[in-house]
Amino acid sequence: MNQEIENAIQDEYPDDFSHCYGCGRLNIKGHQFRTGWDGAQTITVYMPRPEHTAIPGYVYGGLIASLIDCHGTGSASLALHRKNGNEPGDGAEPPRFVTASLEVKFVKPTPQDVPLKAFGKVEEIHPKKFKIHTEVYAGEICCAKGEVVAALMPDTFGK
Amino acid sequence: MNQEIENAIQDEYPDDFSHCYGCGRLNIKGHQFRTGWDGAQTITVYMPRPEHTAIPGYVYGGLIASLIDCHGTGSASLALHRKNGNEPGDGAEPPRFVTASLEVKFVKPTPQDVPLKAFGKVEEIHPKKFKIHTEVYAGEICCAKGEVVAALMPDTFGK
Repeated sequence: MNQEIENAIQDEYPDDFSHCYGCGRLNIKGHQFRTGWDGAQTITVYMPRPEHTAIPGYVYGGLIASLIDCHGTGSASLALHRKNGNEPGDGAEPPRFVTASLEVKFVKPTPQDVPLKAFGKVEEIHPKKFKIHTEVYAGEICCAKGEVVAALMPDTFGK
Repeated sequence: MNQEIENAIQDEYPDDFSHCYGCGRLNIKGHQFRTGWDGAQTITVYMPRPEHTAIPGYVYGGLIASLIDCHGTGSASLALHRKNGNEPGDGAEPPRFVTASLEVKFVKPTPQDVPLKAFGKVEEIHPKKFKIHTEVYAGEICCAKGEVVAALMPDTFGK
């Protein structure tokens, strides 16, 4: 676990929903992104692997898009969980979200060998839909900005 | 090589630019996406690995975003290469592009165990900038739609 989040929402998902390549704690080949609160913002921290290059020395954009994606659904889950009176770590099962849409603007080349930090602001746009505004930093540099629309996972999803 | 493209633009990139986690032929841990012409469209075919799950049985959105991303830059390279009078396989070095922005709309859950096919239409929006409109199919199902703005890689990139 290369991430500094104490209480991550993904730690609370039921096992059946913990196989996501991006943020599933049971997907041992995946990124295992973990998302928690950082004051009024949400945060996900990830150290890219050596193979996650665009060109040598710079991080692959698809990895950044993946980070923004799972950070978005995790942030939506954190926000609705809090609205429902819960916090990760209290034992209540959090709601899960799916990504409806994802937008990424690549602002600057992202240096490798630095942990990436995604910071999110969550906006409720519907009782079952949240928009997450994310900025990804490598050190002091804002390298990418993203928007995710996350929708509450339908009970029928995957059935 | 699990992809059915005969002449892929990525096969022609110089070695220094072939380490991309998405589409670098020299990145043995990466996806090694390959993009070619299919009539007036561009195409990239990829079989997700078993670990590329969102929930079991369905493909991870970040993988789809990665596919759309590299399919976009590869398509822009194909288009400018053709405009310059060249085709992949003729030995000429193609131009390389970076992603300025990426948008993905997830239309339907994407079933696993089916090769994904990304089809692209390339629109020139500036002599050095192309917009690629992409649809990703799993069999007959259009699962995602994407737009990439790809910009010609500056000579200084990564220096």
